[in-house]
Amino acid sequence: MAKKRQLRLGAMIHGIGGHMGAWRHPDAQPDASVSFAFYTQQAQKAEAGKFDLVFVADGLYINEKSLPHFLNRFEPLTILSALGGVTSKIGLVGTVSTSYSEPFTVARQLASLDQISGGRAGWNVVTSPLEGSAKNYGNKQHPDHELRYRIAEEYLTVAKGLWDSWEDDAFVRDKQSGVFFDPAKMHRLDHQGEFFAVQGPLNIARSRQGQPVIFQAGSSESGKTLAAKSADAAFTGQETLADAQRFYRDVKERAAAYGRSSADILIFPGISPIIGRTAEEAKRKHEELASLVSIEQALHFLGRFFDHHDFSQYPLDEPFPDIGEVGSNSFRSTTDKIKQKAREQKWTLRQTALYTATPESEFIGTPEHVADLIQRWFEEEAADGFILQSNVPRGLDDFVDRVVPILQQRGLFRTEYEADTLRGNLGLPFPVNRYAQPRKPEPQGVNAPL
Amino acid sequence: MAKKRQLRLGAMIHGIGGHMGAWRHPDAQPDASVSFAFYTQQAQKAEAGKFDLVFVADGLYINEKSLPHFLNRFEPLTILSALGGVTSKIGLVGTVSTSYSEPFTVARQLASLDQISGGRAGWNVVTSPLEGSAKNYGNKQHPDHELRYRIAEEYLTVAKGLWDSWEDDAFVRDKQSGVFFDPAKMHRLDHQGEFFAVQGPLNIARSRQGQPVIFQAGSSESGKTLAAKSADAAFTGQETLADAQRFYRDVKERAAAYGRSSADILIFPGISPIIGRTAEEAKRKHEELASLVSIEQALHFLGRFFDHHDFSQYPLDEPFPDIGEVGSNSFRSTTDKIKQKAREQKWTLRQTALYTATPESEFIGTPEHVADLIQRWFEEEAADGFILQSNVPRGLDDFVDRVVPILQQRGLFRTEYEADTLRGNLGLPFPVNRYAQPRKPEPQGVNAPL
Repeated sequence: MAKKRQLRLGAMIHGIGGHMGAWRHPDAQPDASVSFAFYTQQAQKAEAGKFDLVFVADGLYINEKSLPHFLNRFEPLTILSALGGVTSKIGLVGTVSTSYSEPFTVARQLASLDQISGGRAGWNVVTSPLEGSAKNYGNKQHPDHELRYRIAEEYLTVAKGLWDSWEDDAFVRDKQSGVFFDPAKMHRLDHQGEFFAVQGPLNIARSRQGQPVIFQAGSSESGKTLAAKSADAAFTGQETLADAQRFYRDVKERAAAYGRSSADILIFPGISPIIGRTAEEAKRKHEELASLVSIEQALHFLGRFFDHHDFSQYPLDEPFPDIGEVGSNSFRSTTDKIKQKAREQKWTLRQTALYTATPESEFIGTPEHVADLIQRWFEEEAADGFILQSNVPRGLDDFVDRVVPILQQRGLFRTEYEADTLRGNLGLPFPVNRYAQPRKPEPQGVNAPL
Repeated sequence: MAKKRQLRLGAMIHGIGGHMGAWRHPDAQPDASVSFAFYTQQAQKAEAGKFDLVFVADGLYINEKSLPHFLNRFEPLTILSALGGVTSKIGLVGTVSTSYSEPFTVARQLASLDQISGGRAGWNVVTSPLEGSAKNYGNKQHPDHELRYRIAEEYLTVAKGLWDSWEDDAFVRDKQSGVFFDPAKMHRLDHQGEFFAVQGPLNIARSRQGQPVIFQAGSSESGKTLAAKSADAAFTGQETLADAQRFYRDVKERAAAYGRSSADILIFPGISPIIGRTAEEAKRKHEELASLVSIEQALHFLGRFFDHHDFSQYPLDEPFPDIGEVGSNSFRSTTDKIKQKAREQKWTLRQTALYTATPESEFIGTPEHVADLIQRWFEEEAADGFILQSNVPRGLDDFVDRVVPILQQRGLFRTEYEADTLRGNLGLPFPVNRYAQPRKPEPQGVNAPL
């Protein structure tokens, strides 16, 4: 019998946030993106709320038009390691690109985070949407969308292979005999592929959760395929219940085609809830946030998804311009959605830009309203869990203090951690080392005469 | 007038240690190399002893003959970040190779560690001695010694350039006007060199110490030149006072040739003190350590410096064999020293191997004896400070509890931290941002009529 599905929650910690104007709020801490005190408070608050994980996003290129948060922020693997020292149960998931790094180094840093935290590491695999990234890494051609995903797939194969370098019982550490490890349980990968050649073994052992949890965050066709084939979880942006259900079914079906069970891949839409004591208070908070962005800033923000395209050249109050394939090598699933929405809603450029800067969301309202929606999305198979992004001050705190208790009362969400590894809390299977021999059955009748 | 020289102390934290048999000691924690609890205890002990810094070494290749510690250990930037969360004053210095990484990523992770820790990061620049490293990174040719140092020099130029991407007052964060940063104080590096092309800017600002402190650990000619030209500190292995004085003078003179002052580059010999209540007790501890290594293990350990050369093929009790240039592309300064020592002492292979596994050291004895030696090396300009490596259980604890108080009583070592940045405690100058305009003189007579 399949285990009962359980709701999962993750908190994106991203300093002054993914909203252009969030830092201008009177209560915002404007240097939060490089404040270890802020990251510590958020991670500890999420852990107090029994969240499965915190999540740190990333990017490899900035220019003067980038979102304030992106200009000056912590690098994920370092800040997550630091948070590992000040938390004890919550998962630590970070974005690392497969387009501009070496699998030996990244597998190793993730394994190190996994050991530091006692089995709480996760990796959000991305392929670097921004073309500018190449300029910071040798100025070669930024690989196109399809190529990036082919690289990512081989990269992930290498990383998982390196993580199995040592079987779980390889380190004997017998002081008497002087045997530190069993050489039969150390394995070289000897990978020779299209993009990578990596011998191994990795110079660090697996943690108590076996391997870090793999998130995948691209929602394009290639992204969904990679998630279905190789990831433990997909992080996605979905605006409506119906869209989210479609995505959910799509990825689960793709996973089944790879012989995986529906429970092997968890779907996490990102949501940006805003909580008020009344619906009106929540709506006012949302309007206040929207008011912190000028139309010029909104155009810059829109341009970012289209590879920093300059939208200020078009008339503001005419229909969203036809810009052809601009930016299609970047955030493809996002740009497709923006274009579609503008077309369907017959929006002007101004409307499109302002909406993109501060999207409307169903998840704005009273704690009960937000809890109702979460329950509905969860029960109607639009989500296995959610990654919360908060763009208003005390957003995570409000959610933990006021929404989590409702979810707990309804029996939807845990009141205590079930495990102390991320994989354990997410209910994901322990990945058996590929080299491990099946265990011999326990001898029957141990008291039989020898 | 020059400031009075002050003694500096660093503690290498390296789990079960740089000695093959250390993990077999009855009191040793045999999984210390992947124990966050152990690293935390050591870092906090060093901080209680007012040490300037902890130091985490590294390597990028292992095989079944590697030292036990090297097989399964934390990666430096992740473990140092975690230690940043559980300490508040001590510097955090880690080894990162310039031969198998990207300067944008490494500069960024170090800057992130520097922000997390409030200005306590340091980078020990190495070029990866082991030829096998190439096998884990694309299996290209391992660059030869000279080439590795040319790459390192350009790499360091790029990293320092990226660290100056943002002037110290670039982030205005004026909520009222909506100005987050001053675009005139954001700088692109636009580096186009022989080995690297990096545009910048870096997506993280400088910390309170300006830039991470640069250590350099190669003692070859190229290593000394790189240290003299570009580093804040040199970490070196020197066995005798005379050798250490020669190295000290050499690097300081090279620095002067680059227009730097003698105080701008600090020399840190590594020492492995063993403390006993009596000289005999200390000697017994050393002998106990030596007894934990078999001759086979000692031959393996010796081979490691010579690119895993197999020394078991030679007769044990004949003079150290002539192996030509084997391993000269690896730990060159170390192998030169081993060969020279064997020749001078007319050692057999057995003697050479056993000595290399467990070197004799002057720094074995009572707390007073070790303090005397430290004082002498410091005052006679063989060292500005020391990096302690401890291969016996409680080695660091003994030093902090019993040697540090003597050094403090003699006025050689601080009783309180002078600063809360690493650069501040080391007495190194603050690196002014290369783009910063000289400050205008303060207006005289501010009460003069406008």
